[in-house]
This record gives sequence, C-alpha cells and structure tokens, in this order.
Amino acid sequence: MPPVVVGADLGGTHLRAALVTESGEVSARHDAPTPKSATPEEMIALLVTILGDVVRASATPPLAVCVGTPGLINADQGKVILAPNIPGFRNLVLTEPLASALALPVFIENDASAAALGEFRYGAGRGARNLLHGTLGTGIGGGIVIEGRLYRGSRGLAGEIGHVILDPAGPRCNCGSRGCLEALVSGVAFAARARKLLAAGGSELLLEIVGYRDPTAADLFAAANAGDQKCEAEVRHGGHRLGLAFGGLVNVLNPDAVTLSGGLLQMGDMLLEPLRKAMFSIAYGPASGTLVRVSTLEDDAGILGAAAVAFERLGTPGAAPLPQ
Amino acid sequence: MPPVVVGADLGGTHLRAALVTESGEVSARHDAPTPKSATPEEMIALLVTILGDVVRASATPPLAVCVGTPGLINADQGKVILAPNIPGFRNLVLTEPLASALALPVFIENDASAAALGEFRYGAGRGARNLLHGTLGTGIGGGIVIEGRLYRGSRGLAGEIGHVILDPAGPRCNCGSRGCLEALVSGVAFAARARKLLAAGGSELLLEIVGYRDPTAADLFAAANAGDQKCEAEVRHGGHRLGLAFGGLVNVLNPDAVTLSGGLLQMGDMLLEPLRKAMFSIAYGPASGTLVRVSTLEDDAGILGAAAVAFERLGTPGAAPLPQ
Repeated sequence: MPPVVVGADLGGTHLRAALVTESGEVSARHDAPTPKSATPEEMIALLVTILGDVVRASATPPLAVCVGTPGLINADQGKVILAPNIPGFRNLVLTEPLASALALPVFIENDASAAALGEFRYGAGRGARNLLHGTLGTGIGGGIVIEGRLYRGSRGLAGEIGHVILDPAGPRCNCGSRGCLEALVSGVAFAARARKLLAAGGSELLLEIVGYRDPTAADLFAAANAGDQKCEAEVRHGGHRLGLAFGGLVNVLNPDAVTLSGGLLQMGDMLLEPLRKAMFSIAYGPASGTLVRVSTLEDDAGILGAAAVAFERLGTPGAAPLPQ
Repeated sequence: MPPVVVGADLGGTHLRAALVTESGEVSARHDAPTPKSATPEEMIALLVTILGDVVRASATPPLAVCVGTPGLINADQGKVILAPNIPGFRNLVLTEPLASALALPVFIENDASAAALGEFRYGAGRGARNLLHGTLGTGIGGGIVIEGRLYRGSRGLAGEIGHVILDPAGPRCNCGSRGCLEALVSGVAFAARARKLLAAGGSELLLEIVGYRDPTAADLFAAANAGDQKCEAEVRHGGHRLGLAFGGLVNVLNPDAVTLSGGLLQMGDMLLEPLRKAMFSIAYGPASGTLVRVSTLEDDAGILGAAAVAFERLGTPGAAPLPQ
C-alpha cells in the first residue's frame, strides 16, 4: 500500500472526505450534507464520525488528515476564525479535538489555498513552478503557489483575489469597499445583474425562467445559454472583467499558469474567451506566456487540495514538474 | 576587512556604484552622468571603467558585482532585453563582458526588484518576511520579497505593479492597456493632469510656474505646495488611487510591509495620508496589519539594492529579522 492521507473538504452544502495517495488516487469517498445548523461540538462530532470512517477504510493508517474549510483561518494555529457558511465555525480550534479523537496529525487550510495546491500537484497546474489559482463561484477566492509551495502570506491571508479593486466607482462589496472584483463578477454579482435586467424589463426570456422568484446567477446563465443576447452580454462582460483583473495579477506575480475552478466556469467559452482575450491584452510583455487552464478535478478538487496540503505539511516532495 | 560587493545602479540620469558590506556600509561611491547616447560597446567600456575604479578602491577583492538596471531583463541569462532609458541597452548580454574585464562574478537585476531586496535587507523593510515594494516615480514599478528572498516570477518579470488595472475606463497607458495604475498615478500621469488643468484654465498659480513650457509633475507639486487647491486635490486623488491599488495587492500578497520609494514621495503626507487611508479601507480583515513605510535610503537605494542581490546570489544569509 502506498502512503495515504485523508483529504476533507467542508463546503456550504457538502462535507466530503476520502483517502488520497501521493500520486492522487482517491478512494473511500464519503459525502454528507452540511447541516443547516449545529453547535461547534456537534460539528466536531460529525467530522470525527466521517473522518473516522475514512481512516478505518484504509488498509494502513493514513499519515495525516487535512481539512479544507472556507473562511478566515489560522492554519498554523489550526483555528477557524470565521467561516460564515459552516455552522459553529467561529473562533474554533479544529485540529486539537480531531487529532485527539483520530489519533493522527490533523491540519486545516483555507479551501481556496488548498485548491491552488491541489491544482499544482494533481490538476491543471501540474508542471508550473509559480501558480495563481482562482475560485470563481458565489464569491471569488484564490490561492498562490510560489516556487512549488503554498504561499500563505504573513498572516495566512494571501490569495484574496476577490478583493482587488477593479473599478473604484463600482458597486459596493460585502467587504465594505467599492468595485472589488467579487462585487463586479461572482455568483452574487451575476444575480444582482439579473435583478437589474428584470427590473428594467430587459429580458423576456430571463423573466420566463425566473417567474416570481428572486433571480440567481444560474437563471442568468440559463437565459444566456438559451440565446438571450443581454444575458450573454452580461456573461461576456464578466469574463472580460475577470481577464482584466487576472492580467494585472499576472503582471505582479508572473506565474507559469493561471488555473480556474468554480461554478462560473459552467459558462465555458462564453466566459473564458473574453477572459483570456482581456488577460492577454493586459499581461505585460513576455508575461503573456502565462497559461490559463480550467480545473478538471470536479468534485474531488477540494479533497485533493486538502490532501496536497497534508503531504506538503508532512514534508513529502511535490509532484515532479512536467516538461513545459 | 568584512566581505564587500560592488553595487551599481544604472538610471536614466546617473550611473552610481560603490562598495557595500554585508551590514550595508557604503564606501568608495562613484557617480557619473548617464550618457545621452552611446553604443553598447561604449556603455560596457564606461561601466568597466567605473566598476573597475570601485573594485580597486577595496582593500580586499570584492566577492561580486551586481548591476541594477531599469527595463526588461533576464537576470538568469545576465541579459538586458530592453531598457529604453539607457543608451545601447537592447538585447545586450551584460554580465559576460563585465565579468571577463573585472575578473569577478557579475549579476544583473531589474532596478525595482533590487530596490525591494535593498529595502528588505537594509532599509524600510527590515524585519519583514514578505514585502511589497513600490517605486513611485516617472513610472510605477515594484518588487516582491517572499519568505526573505527576492521573488522574480517564472520569467523574471514579477512585480510590475504599474500595470494592474484600476479603472478599465481610464486613460490609455504606454503599455497599450487602459487604466493601468501607471496611467493614472505616476510622474507622467501627474504631468498629463497638469496639462489638463492648464488647458481648462483651472490654476493660475500653475500657469505662473509653468509659463510657456510643457508642465511637469514637479510643476504640479510646486503649485500644490504653494497652496493651489486644485493641484493639491490632484495629488490627494493620486494618493487615494495608489492606496486602492496597494490595498488590493495587500489582499493578494498579505505582506508584513509595503515599502515605497521614488520621486512622488517628495509630496509627503499630501500623498501618503490618502494612500494609507484608502489602502487600509481596502485591505481585508487582519491583512490591514500591514505596515506602510517610506524608504530612507535616498541616493544609496539603488546601490544597496544591487548589493543585496549580489549577497543573495552568493548565498549569504539575509539580514536577521528585527523584532516586529
């Protein structure tokens, strides 16, 4: 049996965990719904049950467990500072109770940072030395790999690419600033654009899809896919703006590759074509050699990301770079 | 005698070089005007003369020479790709002829990257582990130190913070994009704002200063310092925009410190107060703990930066971090 770790992925809707080998083989997948409400103690008990099941499925004891979680965390202290989408996750030391119940080393990591290392080691970022990963979903997050290692910054908060300013006169962001990337292009931002379109009577097709509900990004995407010109223009404009932001970040970080994951990518080339075009129009000089690649890890992305962090924490070498 | 290196700083107006010890003592300073025109061979001959004088001023042979130069370079190949402000510096391998003439190891580095490492090791960035440095002058450049080492990116181009997009509807930048930070706030951008103010008849004081010349950023600054409200508003707005850009970059890089150098800083608090305010309004959560510090290395900044690169290339350890 090759060495394995347990990778776990806590999301707003799913709690996923599995065994992962160094080469990225995934087995003993567990998938449970995230409770709508729970105390910290109940959440820890639930994690102990799920992670314990995965640990026991392994023929040899796993080397470690890593849990990827959204929100603000202190990875070195093993502490969740605030994860608004996970019940009970506020000022919660997660590693100690899990480690003592499972009798294994336990690490935690911000999910977008873990995703970056997962793409670097197992996914669309293989072969890169420096990598910028963007998670394009309800919100916009990101992670950075520098010289083959996850870069966390000085307070563990690096990679918050959703809060670069792209338009100082733009809409207010949840973070309080104006014109953050996340306020302009994200699931939440597309839903807001859909509401505006409906309020202006701008799309009959969208109105048909939405009916009396509050519109979502998915509604806007469905209308765009069904041929609605205004909804398609919104998606393309979002792709363009993402490209401007990533182009600027490529000029700062000069990575080999930009990798992307998340729900917005369901729009495929309608989003990606203007994204790439804008990014390469911005990226300065030879930095325009940066590759843009979409994740293909799908539901395993979070598990593989957490596992990659566990292997890095254990000091095992990263995946051998592929020839460029 | 403690070990010394030669640090050299090629600028559009001055060629500076000196001996530098590991602890940052500078001696045997040489300062020559940059020729207005010269062939590559003449430039190399001039550098050999100046650097040779500095080398011979040392009681013990220097360990190495590092030359900081503006423009696009390939540090690993020792090659200047394009430095528009230095005559003859185009597709020029610089290290080989200098190394053979001086019989010493020679390195080259982009001047803004060298400045970042100089601030980290000898200047306003001492005590930081991760550092973002901005050079705020005629143009906007920058450099990044990650985990105590200069970060060059995958093609040696990291740190081009002048080409992040801050306003997609903003003015055209020299790089071809629209609304780059450098197109909005820089010596060149302030000169353009001064021209607009004059054309609109917006400032009598500025007109008095400028007369029949083409206005410069220095003219705008002089009028602002003399109490002209509109010129002061331009400077403050520039500081605000710099703060928005740096705030976004702090969210991505989460450094301990942002250090700043360059001619725009002559405006002091008129620029820095709105810069800091905007930056901290943007910087996300605990990232707002990032320090903003202004360089005090003055004319030695380039020499010390190049020397810091030489010591890093030689493998000597960085300065011991100061207590935070």
